[in-house]
Amino acid sequence: MVRVVVDVMPKPEILDPQGKAVAGALARLGVEGVASVRQGKRFEIEVEVAEGASVDERTAEVERMAATLLANPVIEDYRVSVLADAAGRTHGTDGTDGTDA
Amino acid sequence: MVRVVVDVMPKPEILDPQGKAVAGALARLGVEGVASVRQGKRFEIEVEVAEGASVDERTAEVERMAATLLANPVIEDYRVSVLADAAGRTHGTDGTDGTDA
Repeated sequence: MVRVVVDVMPKPEILDPQGKAVAGALARLGVEGVASVRQGKRFEIEVEVAEGASVDERTAEVERMAATLLANPVIEDYRVSVLADAAGRTHGTDGTDGTDA
Repeated sequence: MVRVVVDVMPKPEILDPQGKAVAGALARLGVEGVASVRQGKRFEIEVEVAEGASVDERTAEVERMAATLLANPVIEDYRVSVLADAAGRTHGTDGTDGTDA
């Protein structure tokens, strides 16, 4: 079993009403020095790694899930990373198309 | 300016209907070997670091924001980490109470 994390964030150029609402709330609570807040989703997916299959293969499958189901590539960027698998290795692929500030 | 990330996830013992819905959708799409899916929120907060203030002080402030506004400590765990600040250092504090599986 390996736990793969998919972080999905709105693209920088996309308006983020949720993030703006949080930033407004922080200001009303007297928190200073917050320039911006962006809010996205985080998925932690536990996937089985069958005999003979590799963590990288399963990570690539999660990458496809992220691109097709978990994120809307038109308005969102996603980032796939493996929390340390059984062998303690971490892996990561980056689904941004280079527009991430 | 430093970008601090706050990841907020439902506590392991709490029912996660959103995660279950995603797991069901993956199964219907024919994706196999997904044991579980948990869905949470990810905040990316840009905070100014005034002259004489330290990144750690600002991170501690974001930690307080996380505990009071961004997460509901009764049903959620949170994790605060700094995306590499200007000096390339990363920091991290962990708002879990040790029950994270």
